[in-house]
Amino acid sequence: MRRVHLLGSTGSIGRTSERVLEEMAATHRVVGLAARRDAKALLAQVERWRPQAVAIVDPDSAEELARPLASRGVRLFVGADAAEELVVAIDADVVLNGIVGARGLGASFAALRRGADLALANKESMVMAGPLLGREAQRSGGRILPVDSEHSAIFQCLQGEPASSVRRLMLTASGGPFRTTPAADLEQVTPAQALRHPTWSMGAKISVDSATLMNKALEIVEATSLFSVVPEQITVLIHPQSIIHSMVEFVDGSILAQLGVPDMAVPIRHALSHPQRHATAHGYFELARFRSLTFEEPDLARFPAIELGYRAARLGGTAGAVLNAANEVAVEAFLQGELPFQRIAPTVAAALDRVAHVSEPTLAEVHAADRAARLEATACRC
Amino acid sequence: MRRVHLLGSTGSIGRTSERVLEEMAATHRVVGLAARRDAKALLAQVERWRPQAVAIVDPDSAEELARPLASRGVRLFVGADAAEELVVAIDADVVLNGIVGARGLGASFAALRRGADLALANKESMVMAGPLLGREAQRSGGRILPVDSEHSAIFQCLQGEPASSVRRLMLTASGGPFRTTPAADLEQVTPAQALRHPTWSMGAKISVDSATLMNKALEIVEATSLFSVVPEQITVLIHPQSIIHSMVEFVDGSILAQLGVPDMAVPIRHALSHPQRHATAHGYFELARFRSLTFEEPDLARFPAIELGYRAARLGGTAGAVLNAANEVAVEAFLQGELPFQRIAPTVAAALDRVAHVSEPTLAEVHAADRAARLEATACRC
Repeated sequence: MRRVHLLGSTGSIGRTSERVLEEMAATHRVVGLAARRDAKALLAQVERWRPQAVAIVDPDSAEELARPLASRGVRLFVGADAAEELVVAIDADVVLNGIVGARGLGASFAALRRGADLALANKESMVMAGPLLGREAQRSGGRILPVDSEHSAIFQCLQGEPASSVRRLMLTASGGPFRTTPAADLEQVTPAQALRHPTWSMGAKISVDSATLMNKALEIVEATSLFSVVPEQITVLIHPQSIIHSMVEFVDGSILAQLGVPDMAVPIRHALSHPQRHATAHGYFELARFRSLTFEEPDLARFPAIELGYRAARLGGTAGAVLNAANEVAVEAFLQGELPFQRIAPTVAAALDRVAHVSEPTLAEVHAADRAARLEATACRC
Repeated sequence: MRRVHLLGSTGSIGRTSERVLEEMAATHRVVGLAARRDAKALLAQVERWRPQAVAIVDPDSAEELARPLASRGVRLFVGADAAEELVVAIDADVVLNGIVGARGLGASFAALRRGADLALANKESMVMAGPLLGREAQRSGGRILPVDSEHSAIFQCLQGEPASSVRRLMLTASGGPFRTTPAADLEQVTPAQALRHPTWSMGAKISVDSATLMNKALEIVEATSLFSVVPEQITVLIHPQSIIHSMVEFVDGSILAQLGVPDMAVPIRHALSHPQRHATAHGYFELARFRSLTFEEPDLARFPAIELGYRAARLGGTAGAVLNAANEVAVEAFLQGELPFQRIAPTVAAALDRVAHVSEPTLAEVHAADRAARLEATACRC
């Protein structure tokens, strides 16, 4: 029985993970849940999974939970570091980190420090502190199993292949809702439009990142850490149907690709059962979805975020943390109607210009860069 | 230094293999060459590769070769079994079998019997005697490395994956030159039209097999032996661009595909260097070729050959040998203008109906079935 912590359990990844874990009842057991503030949803999950412990960030929600959890003998962790505390306190074999944003980093570290496997949907962890997490995994024997559809695809294509055989990673991108929108019209884009993703159903933050293509910038940085490649070995390809989730080109001219319906259940299932593959009853090949797969080059002029990803990946060190933090601030401002869509990338670029760079940062220096970038981005957009 | 026998050296696979082996001069050395009758081309290859020995089927060509080879100290094998004799007599680490048709079987066996790796472009070997070759490989430790683009693709997708994870193999087919030709017009098809393949440059026999889709029938039988799947686990998909060379669907809903330019150099390179991948200077990803990839279901009414493949695979035993032999006779008759294109599949079907079936044949029984099917197919078309 594999014991699972499900972090970010009431979000998009968390709910899809529940669907997968229901299929895995014979082999996996949920022992911990963590959410931000949705007490009602979390309580329903407690009923469903009967975990040993629960973590919640918001103190008001915690108050709501305290009595019902106590009566069920479920331990409760509260506050900004609640998820991390849960991971430290309760044994698990795999930690599925579906927390959104930089605040997922602590729990990622805690999981690897314990030698647990880290099923990582919180790409910000790798973007901010990839080399540090990699070293921790090597020390403890915990594995980093990507839950991003792109990195899960690459991970699957690389099985059994020596790193020296890799020529290039090809990250595919749907192109988001504005793939064909003229540059002039991008000025007027509203949050509602940005959240209307053509192929994937995801949370708000990630949907905006897909619209700016900043998600590819983050993924470029993530891929350099996960797969030990240099930024020049990464290519971004627009693939509007989101069927091919990414590809690896080998030095012999052969390319492997991972394909499937655009459903996060697939990479989640893979990460939770690797190196086995867990059989499912749905989501198999349907010709209708594969009838026509198209590819085009990204328009770097309309989507300047991609270049920022290469820049941060080349810089290394704290640049990933700066990229991510400035983007979080800018996306939040956009969602609040306080920053035009086309100012997100320049806000991030300005933070990369201005925040002092550290090449081989400690975790404290990563956090300092994150804070400095948030200040810079907040100041910039005012 | 890996010692290589190149069988069928003056044919399409042989010439492409030379191109690959030139790239591999630092790691691979050609020690044997075998051809059917082209003495001039073979002599040029002897000059290029300086092998220890040469095999030729045609006695007249052998006469032409005798003196120049003797003066160079190159041993000569002559006759129908010359390639097999070469493999038995001269040590090699890998035997690339690019012989066309059933007469390639003896050399395949000889290679595995010696414990050499068998880089197998002669799919007829597996179609006729897959289980026997599989047992021989297991006994001797020789590996069967597919050089067919489809089976090489599947082989690459299966690396590091347990067999229990496989749900389905998806063999892709270009659809050949008559993919969109109405049934009525197929009656009038000429050999010249059948040889005009839209994406692959190949020998005459294989080009006709691509036009009838009998190549998929052979590949279905081959795949059941190579990858230990049942026929029901194999799907044929028409993919006119020939960029995705085949796919594997896993039980968890994930699909892996191998892609690349349609060039036999890719699977040849893979088989000669596996488990490494040999770097090349050309044939990498070009967006223009990937711009649009399409898939459709095969039309089983216009291309009845596919059903024959399933039938032979379900029957097992000698059915593969019968399928292959009857098809060889029918294709040759078609190329000679003696059999209409639309009679190829019925001729093969009749042979499957009429030749007595043996479930667990010896090699002698396989050969007997091959002979009986040839007689049946010859009689049938008269």
